[in-house]
Amino acid sequence: MTAPISEGRVSARLAELGLTLPPVVAPVAAYIPAVQHGDLVWTAGQVPMVDGALQLTGKVGNGPGLVDPDQAHQLARICALNALAAVQSVVDLDRVVRVVKVVGYVASDPSFTGQPGVVNGASALLGEVFGPPGAHARSAVGVAVLPLDAPVEVELVVAVT
Amino acid sequence: MTAPISEGRVSARLAELGLTLPPVVAPVAAYIPAVQHGDLVWTAGQVPMVDGALQLTGKVGNGPGLVDPDQAHQLARICALNALAAVQSVVDLDRVVRVVKVVGYVASDPSFTGQPGVVNGASALLGEVFGPPGAHARSAVGVAVLPLDAPVEVELVVAVT
Amino acid sequence: MTAPISEGRVSARLAELGLTLPPVVAPVAAYIPAVQHGDLVWTAGQVPMVDGALQLTGKVGNGPGLVDPDQAHQLARICALNALAAVQSVVDLDRVVRVVKVVGYVASDPSFTGQPGVVNGASALLGEVFGPPGAHARSAVGVAVLPLDAPVEVELVVAVT
Repeated sequence: MTAPISEGRVSARLAELGLTLPPVVAPVAAYIPAVQHGDLVWTAGQVPMVDGALQLTGKVGNGPGLVDPDQAHQLARICALNALAAVQSVVDLDRVVRVVKVVGYVASDPSFTGQPGVVNGASALLGEVFGPPGAHARSAVGVAVLPLDAPVEVELVVAVT
Repeated sequence: MTAPISEGRVSARLAELGLTLPPVVAPVAAYIPAVQHGDLVWTAGQVPMVDGALQLTGKVGNGPGLVDPDQAHQLARICALNALAAVQSVVDLDRVVRVVKVVGYVASDPSFTGQPGVVNGASALLGEVFGPPGAHARSAVGVAVLPLDAPVEVELVVAVT
Repeated sequence: MTAPISEGRVSARLAELGLTLPPVVAPVAAYIPAVQHGDLVWTAGQVPMVDGALQLTGKVGNGPGLVDPDQAHQLARICALNALAAVQSVVDLDRVVRVVKVVGYVASDPSFTGQPGVVNGASALLGEVFGPPGAHARSAVGVAVLPLDAPVEVELVVAVT
């Protein structure tokens, strides 16, 4: 993205997408939502909180008592939106020139191997918001359990100008 | 932290806190404790070794046979101290200007969702040692098992001057 | 590594080691294999694909139905080779001046605690290819399950000139 910064660009794009940047989620512990150092911003891991409440809890998988992968995909999208709010808490989103790295942790039933599809919810949102500069390197892993029993947690590293 | 570097500042602060920086923990494998590139130092994941021995092993949770979350909080503190020793192995801690990112992995019983409280042990130590520049972005995740059956593993990215 | 860039150095070294850089593995989702920003290249998490097929699936551990740790060590080596292919997709490997950070995720039976030995497969390969600049900070963790039921996933951050 070599174009000059266009003020209000990202907020306009979010509005087009029908998305509202939420207030930054208060850390559940002794840390802060994001840190800028140099031209990188690193976010804390974001869980799918909306208005202070987790949207769902549990492990993702196929079967009774598990969070459906399609639902988890939507939750990953919420995580990504919360991560953008975390970035915005330290630097205006219009200054993001590249999404560098995404790690998506999926609390997984041990038989569930569709983590990439779940974390695509986050990746797709970043593509929709930023266009080509939203394309990022990514790791998706299936973990035993996440804070507050969240099904998904997403963290970002973005480059800013 | 825009103040000029004050020599011995961090070691004095550690002493005030009653802490002694341990010798850097020898990697259990083919890697090194920390790498500096540019103004960032990246540490290897640190487990709660003291004098070459893990302080406890097992999964964290509530119930028989599990590591108590309060104990795990103390172990996370040890991990963070070991991570500082890893940083010190490549650059003097007085040159740390910001703790940028912490990832805390907690070997978790699948029913245990208090990872943030555990990793707070690491975050609090960093705040005590560095003050406001110790505030960092953080991810806490609950994993199936950690090397040597360690209950906690902590890695840092810090910025140095 | 302060020596000037020697063109073809890494490909010659790979040939000496009997290794062929594979084609970059197509992401299984909406992201890209690697991103360069400034002098860092961040790779996506790489699973042990060869010619588009996972070499093995399952959890690593000792016992029936588990992937043998020695086999997993070899898989980690393949992951690292794929990660180098990912780096090469954005910048020539001859321009790598340092391997900064490796994270190795091992899909683990909860009783298996030998993740460092497994991820050594990746670390050793990096040492063989790059020599001393291949020495890196590293975290190895045991996760519940990985995408496509891969036994190992490896991601890199490398510095380039």
